[in-house]
Amino acid sequence: MAYDSNNVFAKILRNEIPSVRVYEDDKTLAFMDVMPQADGHVLVIPKEPAENILDLSSQGAAALIATTQKVARAVKKGLDAPGIMIAQLNGAPAGQSVFHVHFHVVPRQHGADFRLHAREMMETPDRLRDFAGKIKAALE
Amino acid sequence: MAYDSNNVFAKILRNEIPSVRVYEDDKTLAFMDVMPQADGHVLVIPKEPAENILDLSSQGAAALIATTQKVARAVKKGLDAPGIMIAQLNGAPAGQSVFHVHFHVVPRQHGADFRLHAREMMETPDRLRDFAGKIKAALE
Repeated sequence: MAYDSNNVFAKILRNEIPSVRVYEDDKTLAFMDVMPQADGHVLVIPKEPAENILDLSSQGAAALIATTQKVARAVKKGLDAPGIMIAQLNGAPAGQSVFHVHFHVVPRQHGADFRLHAREMMETPDRLRDFAGKIKAALE
Repeated sequence: MAYDSNNVFAKILRNEIPSVRVYEDDKTLAFMDVMPQADGHVLVIPKEPAENILDLSSQGAAALIATTQKVARAVKKGLDAPGIMIAQLNGAPAGQSVFHVHFHVVPRQHGADFRLHAREMMETPDRLRDFAGKIKAALE
């Protein structure tokens, strides 16, 4: 899918719609999510037009993670957040709703209500090797 | 909390316990999660000993996101994944269970079962500005 320069974050970058900004430099912007998953939920985006992390340049990704680190430290300190979740969704099937690459920085105040290790059983080595083989082939 | 060099991922880096590896370079390692949230769930870690993203050096973070991008593209291509979720949890309150910084790369095959915009209502500008003020103060 081609990048749509009329997505909401592109409009925020161009100041066509308002945002509550927390940080900006020449390559990135951080602003408050207007539909936060938790109080203090910040979004970090590159200025480079890229739909998702797969399309983003390596320079863009390096700038994006640098600002994300900076913002995560500030959210932890500024909001006294015991935990910080960082998430980045690629494609509608993963839950992406705005098609300009973005990192979510979400304070976690209480117990873990989001666990990534959802399964109770360990995966078998054979199945892991099967998936690994396909991924390694795609890396080449 | 000081970095514990006996955490599971440190042992994987030292080859003291086995792992199914998909990629390795001088700064990073990617291997299959043994308790996957979905088929093809890969973990990407830096070789630098750091408990979480807040403690990681900027060089370490740049290497980590570069490998995460590489692996995400390979997971999408190799496993034909329509969506890719990238997540990184900091602190037990956020759900972190192994205290060596790691990115989860999780294929999303079906509809969005993980939405970050959980709230129905938009946040008020006043509340957003309040949080933003605290975060900006912490950035200085």
